[in-house]
Amino acid sequence: MNKYVYLFREGDATMKNELGGKGANLAEMTNIGLPVPQGFTVTTEACTRFYADNKTIAPVIEAQIYEALAAMEKEYDKKFGDLENPLLVSVRSGSRASMPGMMDTILNLGLNDVAVEGLAKLTGNVRFAYDSYRRFIQMFSDVVMEVGKIKFHDALEDVKRENGTTQDTDLTADNLKEVVRRFKKIYFDAMGSEFPQDPKVQLMESIKAVFRSWDNDRAVYYRRMNDIPGDWGTAVNVQVMVFGNMGDDCGTGVAFTRNPATGENKLYGEYLMNAQGEDVVAGIRTPNPIESMKDTLPEVYEQFVKYADTLENHYHDMQDMEFTIERGKLYMLQTRNGKRTAAAALKIAVDLVEEGQLTQEEAVLKVEPKQLDTLLHPNFDEEALKGAQVITTALPASPGAAAGALYFTAADAAKAGKEGKDVILVREETTPEDIEGMDMARGILTARGGMTSHAAVVARGMGRPAIVGAGALQIDDVKKTMTVNGKTYKEGDNVSLDGTSGKVYEGLVATVETEVTGDFAKLMGWADEARTLKVRTNADTPRDTQHAVEFGAEGIGLCRTEHMFFEADRVKAMREMILSDNAQQRKAALDTILPFQQKDFEEMYIVLEDRPMTVRYLDPPLHEFLPQLSMKDEIAAIAKELGTTSEAIVEKINQLHETNPMMGHRGCRLAVTFPEIAEMQTRAVLQAALKVRKEKGINVKPEIMIPLVGTLKEFQFVKKIVMDTAEKIFTEQNDRIEFQVGTMIEIPRACVVADKIAAEAEFFSFGTNDLTQMTFGFSRDDAGMFLDAYYTNKILESDPFARVDVEGVGALMQMAVEKGRSARPNLKLGICGEHGGDPSTIEFCHQIGLDYVSCSPFRVPIARLAAAQAAIKEKQAKK
Amino acid sequence: MNKYVYLFREGDATMKNELGGKGANLAEMTNIGLPVPQGFTVTTEACTRFYADNKTIAPVIEAQIYEALAAMEKEYDKKFGDLENPLLVSVRSGSRASMPGMMDTILNLGLNDVAVEGLAKLTGNVRFAYDSYRRFIQMFSDVVMEVGKIKFHDALEDVKRENGTTQDTDLTADNLKEVVRRFKKIYFDAMGSEFPQDPKVQLMESIKAVFRSWDNDRAVYYRRMNDIPGDWGTAVNVQVMVFGNMGDDCGTGVAFTRNPATGENKLYGEYLMNAQGEDVVAGIRTPNPIESMKDTLPEVYEQFVKYADTLENHYHDMQDMEFTIERGKLYMLQTRNGKRTAAAALKIAVDLVEEGQLTQEEAVLKVEPKQLDTLLHPNFDEEALKGAQVITTALPASPGAAAGALYFTAADAAKAGKEGKDVILVREETTPEDIEGMDMARGILTARGGMTSHAAVVARGMGRPAIVGAGALQIDDVKKTMTVNGKTYKEGDNVSLDGTSGKVYEGLVATVETEVTGDFAKLMGWADEARTLKVRTNADTPRDTQHAVEFGAEGIGLCRTEHMFFEADRVKAMREMILSDNAQQRKAALDTILPFQQKDFEEMYIVLEDRPMTVRYLDPPLHEFLPQLSMKDEIAAIAKELGTTSEAIVEKINQLHETNPMMGHRGCRLAVTFPEIAEMQTRAVLQAALKVRKEKGINVKPEIMIPLVGTLKEFQFVKKIVMDTAEKIFTEQNDRIEFQVGTMIEIPRACVVADKIAAEAEFFSFGTNDLTQMTFGFSRDDAGMFLDAYYTNKILESDPFARVDVEGVGALMQMAVEKGRSARPNLKLGICGEHGGDPSTIEFCHQIGLDYVSCSPFRVPIARLAAAQAAIKEKQAKK
Repeated sequence: MNKYVYLFREGDATMKNELGGKGANLAEMTNIGLPVPQGFTVTTEACTRFYADNKTIAPVIEAQIYEALAAMEKEYDKKFGDLENPLLVSVRSGSRASMPGMMDTILNLGLNDVAVEGLAKLTGNVRFAYDSYRRFIQMFSDVVMEVGKIKFHDALEDVKRENGTTQDTDLTADNLKEVVRRFKKIYFDAMGSEFPQDPKVQLMESIKAVFRSWDNDRAVYYRRMNDIPGDWGTAVNVQVMVFGNMGDDCGTGVAFTRNPATGENKLYGEYLMNAQGEDVVAGIRTPNPIESMKDTLPEVYEQFVKYADTLENHYHDMQDMEFTIERGKLYMLQTRNGKRTAAAALKIAVDLVEEGQLTQEEAVLKVEPKQLDTLLHPNFDEEALKGAQVITTALPASPGAAAGALYFTAADAAKAGKEGKDVILVREETTPEDIEGMDMARGILTARGGMTSHAAVVARGMGRPAIVGAGALQIDDVKKTMTVNGKTYKEGDNVSLDGTSGKVYEGLVATVETEVTGDFAKLMGWADEARTLKVRTNADTPRDTQHAVEFGAEGIGLCRTEHMFFEADRVKAMREMILSDNAQQRKAALDTILPFQQKDFEEMYIVLEDRPMTVRYLDPPLHEFLPQLSMKDEIAAIAKELGTTSEAIVEKINQLHETNPMMGHRGCRLAVTFPEIAEMQTRAVLQAALKVRKEKGINVKPEIMIPLVGTLKEFQFVKKIVMDTAEKIFTEQNDRIEFQVGTMIEIPRACVVADKIAAEAEFFSFGTNDLTQMTFGFSRDDAGMFLDAYYTNKILESDPFARVDVEGVGALMQMAVEKGRSARPNLKLGICGEHGGDPSTIEFCHQIGLDYVSCSPFRVPIARLAAAQAAIKEKQAKK
Repeated sequence: MNKYVYLFREGDATMKNELGGKGANLAEMTNIGLPVPQGFTVTTEACTRFYADNKTIAPVIEAQIYEALAAMEKEYDKKFGDLENPLLVSVRSGSRASMPGMMDTILNLGLNDVAVEGLAKLTGNVRFAYDSYRRFIQMFSDVVMEVGKIKFHDALEDVKRENGTTQDTDLTADNLKEVVRRFKKIYFDAMGSEFPQDPKVQLMESIKAVFRSWDNDRAVYYRRMNDIPGDWGTAVNVQVMVFGNMGDDCGTGVAFTRNPATGENKLYGEYLMNAQGEDVVAGIRTPNPIESMKDTLPEVYEQFVKYADTLENHYHDMQDMEFTIERGKLYMLQTRNGKRTAAAALKIAVDLVEEGQLTQEEAVLKVEPKQLDTLLHPNFDEEALKGAQVITTALPASPGAAAGALYFTAADAAKAGKEGKDVILVREETTPEDIEGMDMARGILTARGGMTSHAAVVARGMGRPAIVGAGALQIDDVKKTMTVNGKTYKEGDNVSLDGTSGKVYEGLVATVETEVTGDFAKLMGWADEARTLKVRTNADTPRDTQHAVEFGAEGIGLCRTEHMFFEADRVKAMREMILSDNAQQRKAALDTILPFQQKDFEEMYIVLEDRPMTVRYLDPPLHEFLPQLSMKDEIAAIAKELGTTSEAIVEKINQLHETNPMMGHRGCRLAVTFPEIAEMQTRAVLQAALKVRKEKGINVKPEIMIPLVGTLKEFQFVKKIVMDTAEKIFTEQNDRIEFQVGTMIEIPRACVVADKIAAEAEFFSFGTNDLTQMTFGFSRDDAGMFLDAYYTNKILESDPFARVDVEGVGALMQMAVEKGRSARPNLKLGICGEHGGDPSTIEFCHQIGLDYVSCSPFRVPIARLAAAQAAIKEKQAKK
């Protein structure tokens, strides 16, 4: 028979999966002899079964709960619902990962009309007993039965007013009896039945409520944000009550073994005498700093310090503890690894190594990779933020804080930026043409698009804070205004963007640079020693490359060459090429572009030094280089510039129109129809490489990447253009250079025939953005129309464009890895989709044996840390 | 060492793969003792090696060729290039499948300035020798060296004129020597070198030319049209020459053992005395019917009849033979299974069974499934067609012949059709709104779209002839004209469409109904006995269903319910639903649609009787039910009808706009966001089923199909709506009916997680249109922009939207089959994409173990035959 219920003394810290974090730690504290009020944990497996059984608790589980309850009655010599010596318990949720979205705690469970008298007798304190009872009725009604809090609050206020007071503490025992009477009536009116008097019913209902809370909207949302699987379930902890509110020799508090904001190695916390936990939270009385207990309760303090040390030394991590003092005796109610800021996380990890508590590898595991984001970007000053007015909140697409004046076109933004203004670029959505304006802006705000929209991807690459998909904005880029909730902002008005929270503030909010300490370098050094996965970057400019190299990038995993075609001189030639009628005209236009592209590569090679650079050949559909049909002025201007008519351009735009451009004429399909583009790009890549090697003595390592390949023959076709052109160049220059030709794996078919492609391709780089789109059949530009419904209905648990869908997309990746390596054992494997900077995806990439991940420059440290953690976890698992 | 060259006597009929069809049959004829001029075959493997060796013939192959040549010299006691007794040969291509796109024959190879004298001596006929030589120079120059024919033609004409004649036969030996002189000069001027005098050089160059011709544009095109793999390669047959033009006791001809047009069991053919094969083809002289040989050459005739009988009895099929009579001796030059009309194919197959030559299963294999198309549709009268003027040629999207007056809008077409006119509907491209106009038209012509465009799919479903993608047409649907090559046609002008050839003719061309004979029923009966794959149909109306049932459909595999929403009353309610702001309004609109949809299902159930019907729930993105933004009048009309404003409709159109609608808000994603649609459809399906069973006693078998599923949870979510609604209906009606719930497998991810989905889904139906789109990342609406370049560059050999891409899409299907059956061994598996009617795809479906294929009604017989052939081939292979 499955064991669904564990007494605290039956578990230990290793049983987190079954008992949840809280339960496992309560068991562990019990084992190491700390004073823990005893109790039991109903396992996460019971929760899973609860859902399988159509949200009921199976008799076998119920029996085990009652058995554990009986053990508690025996241990404490108390009885559930007893008139003499009633057993009271708390009920709390506790999943494997800390989840604030779940159920609140229920205290004082077990009280009823009889037991309240028992409690009064036992404590000699009628007022305390009825105060506890009324608190319990309210909590149970609210949390378990979802009877709104407000009625209870009103009833309590009524009684206070009737008795001429405004303070709870002024209410007498009789007053509280009246409160209890009224509370029970509220319950009856709402539920149509009496408040349950049977403590066992109270308990079972509470346990069910915890299980249900696992699937409430907040919890689902939190799980999605934090990559927690929906099938983990939550455990329930039932613990015998101790009381911090029984008198002046009682109290309750929370404390950290170190400072969670700075990491300073000094006990940090606060407590209240004669109070229950909820009073500390409610903020009616101001708690005292933990140090002050040294004077008021020196023995308890000394004991607490000892326990705190024991726990930190036991867990080798900063602990976040709750405690209660009942009649002078200290009880430990909870301990867990404490949440901390990024700076504190680094300091604590490094300190713990220096104190000999952790190995370097263990320390590496203590820092949350995503947290590093806040270290690498400026953030808003916490104080300044308090007074700031939020205009709207949308998707936090690229982290960091930015403040400046609104500009509504890329051209205006670029101009203002060059004049030294702090610019916030606002667009309906950005297009590749906006690139210069984006680059000159402090921050970017769009009304449309998701986390992998153009604005989001480019902003992250540039390290520019960005908020996207702000649907509440109505943008008028003719009038140059944006309206939100009835208020209109015009060009030059100041706003501030928090790209980490997605909040847009009115006016200029002051920012602060986070200080990067030596701890960062130290920890990253240990991470680099541990990881096997290399970390590259996605970069298209020398400046991005420079940033990435400073952040530790070991090469470029994705240089999107199309970004190089949008600057004024080049886009003209590009448009000439597109408007050409034949290969000859196209070649002439491409000849104009060649020197620009070659120069870009030269500059990037010089920054990279000996590091490899993967250059992706032209990928987007050509219509992206032409304006939209509605932009008549731009069309006329381009026609004039190119010496043709608006009609000719309109005709070409119509001709290039595609119903589903994502699956249209792009990627290697461009090289098949216009081989001269691939020829030009090969010249740019290799001529630049030969030149830089010759002039600078740099051992340049170009890797040519053919995008959107789905069949071997496609790859062969384009590779032949590359090889033939290369041989021409080498003959012309009487000089050669080594280079590789590989492909992006981003079409499902490519995964299926990866063995065939690998026979010719020297490397694969997973383009997981497109691979996710095609594997799911989701257009990332459109999926917003239904993805919310998918999250609400729990069809999807996380955004497949942010975190690789391991079950589907991941299975195809693994297939490609296995097939590819079967045909070419030394095949180089990487990932260059947006997912390459996501820690959980990086762990998956490590598991399936990729050689490297590539991500935007500002994510490089995150990727290094995540890669190290993946390697260390694997090593630990093997032990 | 590999054997690359086989003497005819070393091969046999089973070696078609190595020797090609022609070579294997020459070997077989040699083996059964027919008089075949001897020779040898260079294998298809040598062709493959030729390409692998960068289009050169490896020394090992060259050596084997010379060895075989020496054997011929010995056997015939002749010498290559000899002055006394020169060996002359013919060189012909011959691949595994008959391929008219490949190289023409070269005759008289071995002649040079010396050997021509030898031939003159040997035959005592100088004129004949030089006539042969000039023919050879021209053929070699044209076919092998690609020197244009026209110069040779002109030179010959010059000599004729100079000698005052217009007939080749009037030229003297000396005249022909002059012709040879001039021909050699033409060669020298074009090639910059003398005409090759070394017969071995002539031979090797000719063999290389045959190998090269395997990859010429015509051959590539033919292979693509006929599903012939590019890696088969062609063999080359080198055969000792016999001459039909050496005098009046010589001749040449072709004959069929039966009549290839009707199948009548009577020798059918023609011959010319004193002629070479090319003269028969050139049509300068009128050949004689084969029967007349009975009088002129009775012994030869008797011999030929005997050989013809021998061959037909040997191959158990109608033979197409070439023969030559040299000085009264009959030689057989070639035999093969003859091409025949569909009617003849049926008659011959049935006759051969009745004659005891074939088993029923063997007979089933003798009919080409695709040929049946011509039997099931009216065709143009061959005579009438001869004078008809072709306006343009485009994609033959739906077979058959149609003639009528042009109409440019669906409304005009519907109106004219109802008035009894023969209507040809012409559109830029059709949309679901055009459905009524399409239905009322005799034929459909569009300027855009491919073989799986809306027009193509719907027309095939309706059995309406259609030609699509006629890019040469400029259509102006405001002026109601179409212009092509400078000529403009207006409303009411007559045109004729041949949906089988893709040709559009001016005016009305007379059509004939093909007679469907008893042979058809007989053969289809045998096919049904042999096949294991069931054949269903894709049908959305009672009429289509009726057609399909008559053609033998065993159920409906795909009922696209959206087609039911486009009729006037319904589309109004549909638009009301789309414009609704909340579920309540949507439900009200859906309530209006329910009775219509239910009635449609009732009518179809009645036609189907006990056969199952798979109903696919609403699939297309909702914007398809609204007009395009540019259609201002329609928007205004709809606004008026719905009692709202044009602005409201424009806003909704904008809101529903998608960048990539194919991967957008459609399929089961609609049911997730608007569960009330799935509820309504469940009511329609089940209420109709209950009613028809009750009223008609029909054992209705509904199968509810959820489209576009990619994850188990999506399927579960929609299935729950279906099951909950079903239970409600059953309770309301106090009656129940069995039904199944399954899914369409059309998203790559669904294949990857098919085992998980199969745990809940009772059937899978492969939606190979979408699966092909997403697996390749090809939008079928846009792929036309680059697919031509893919064919030209041999990256793709066949249209993946017409024939399933076995390597990629097929591998995913197989994965889904294996995973699906692993989770649910009795999982029902079918295919309902356009590929379901393609014979080669059907064979693949049989191989991977599907239960049924579903295709448009007019393809049902084709599918039955193809399914039978797949089963029989498998059985034969197992023997």
